[in-house]
Amino acid sequence: MKSRLIFFFSRSTEKAECFSIMEIPLNFFCCEHQLRSVFSIFPKDALVIRLKQVIAARKDLNMGAGKLAVQVAHASVSCVLLIFGSGNRSWEGWLKKWVEEGQKKIVVKVFSQKELGELYQEATSLGLPTSFINDAGLTQLEPGTATTVGIGPGPDELVDKITGKLKLY
Amino acid sequence: MKSRLIFFFSRSTEKAECFSIMEIPLNFFCCEHQLRSVFSIFPKDALVIRLKQVIAARKDLNMGAGKLAVQVAHASVSCVLLIFGSGNRSWEGWLKKWVEEGQKKIVVKVFSQKELGELYQEATSLGLPTSFINDAGLTQLEPGTATTVGIGPGPDELVDKITGKLKLY
Repeated sequence: MKSRLIFFFSRSTEKAECFSIMEIPLNFFCCEHQLRSVFSIFPKDALVIRLKQVIAARKDLNMGAGKLAVQVAHASVSCVLLIFGSGNRSWEGWLKKWVEEGQKKIVVKVFSQKELGELYQEATSLGLPTSFINDAGLTQLEPGTATTVGIGPGPDELVDKITGKLKLY
Repeated sequence: MKSRLIFFFSRSTEKAECFSIMEIPLNFFCCEHQLRSVFSIFPKDALVIRLKQVIAARKDLNMGAGKLAVQVAHASVSCVLLIFGSGNRSWEGWLKKWVEEGQKKIVVKVFSQKELGELYQEATSLGLPTSFINDAGLTQLEPGTATTVGIGPGPDELVDKITGKLKLY
């Protein structure tokens, strides 16, 4: 079983943020509820995993704003559909928590199809739900043009390993 | 049981497109398969329902391209999540077919929160899955600003009743 970094941090207002970093097996925990029950030494409001979904979009295609929005939505929805069909408890837990937190989504830019492909590979190999979008090509783009990659929802720190260095679109 | 307009049209290349408009009960059919089994007088390739999702976004907010994309994706994903939690067989059938068809999404523009609210009300009253998005307001916008409305996936003609007059974003 592969191990992954998961960060816990305190939300307490009485002291400065206190980080505790632990290496735990992937797929062992799927939601905050399970984590709380194991790490019961933490006060009730101390244990928070934050989740996000990052969508990488190709800036080099110069898509119009509406076109970009559609490609980003394709990537986002495709990840959600993947999770629903997966039977993967971790992913389902992440999705549930992500929705409760308000579905944090971030759009970042890349500049080639190659870069898009590499992100997809890296995110998949880290065990994150991912989607790769090719445009139908009815407007603006050639059919089959790769436009976006969706990564997550997954824990912030896990997603940041892949996309942390990329700039906002 | 409310009745709704459903359009059938011929895909035949041998004759001009031939439209047949019928009033049938909502929730009676949920997918092309069921329609085919009832209307067996139609040739196998004659009966097609096309589905789409339309997302209306506020142009008056002058959102950046990335911000717009996130708000559109919120609306799109929220409709999908609504369907999964609904137990509504028609919606589930529409979702399945829409995914098979390639998740057609269209982004259109409106110019006020009032217009957004009216679209939401109209679409909901027609029995379409809908979502109404208020931004968390962490960047660019005031917290709680209404940004987008998601409508569908649903049959083209049903969605067009609400959004047919709106221009592409």
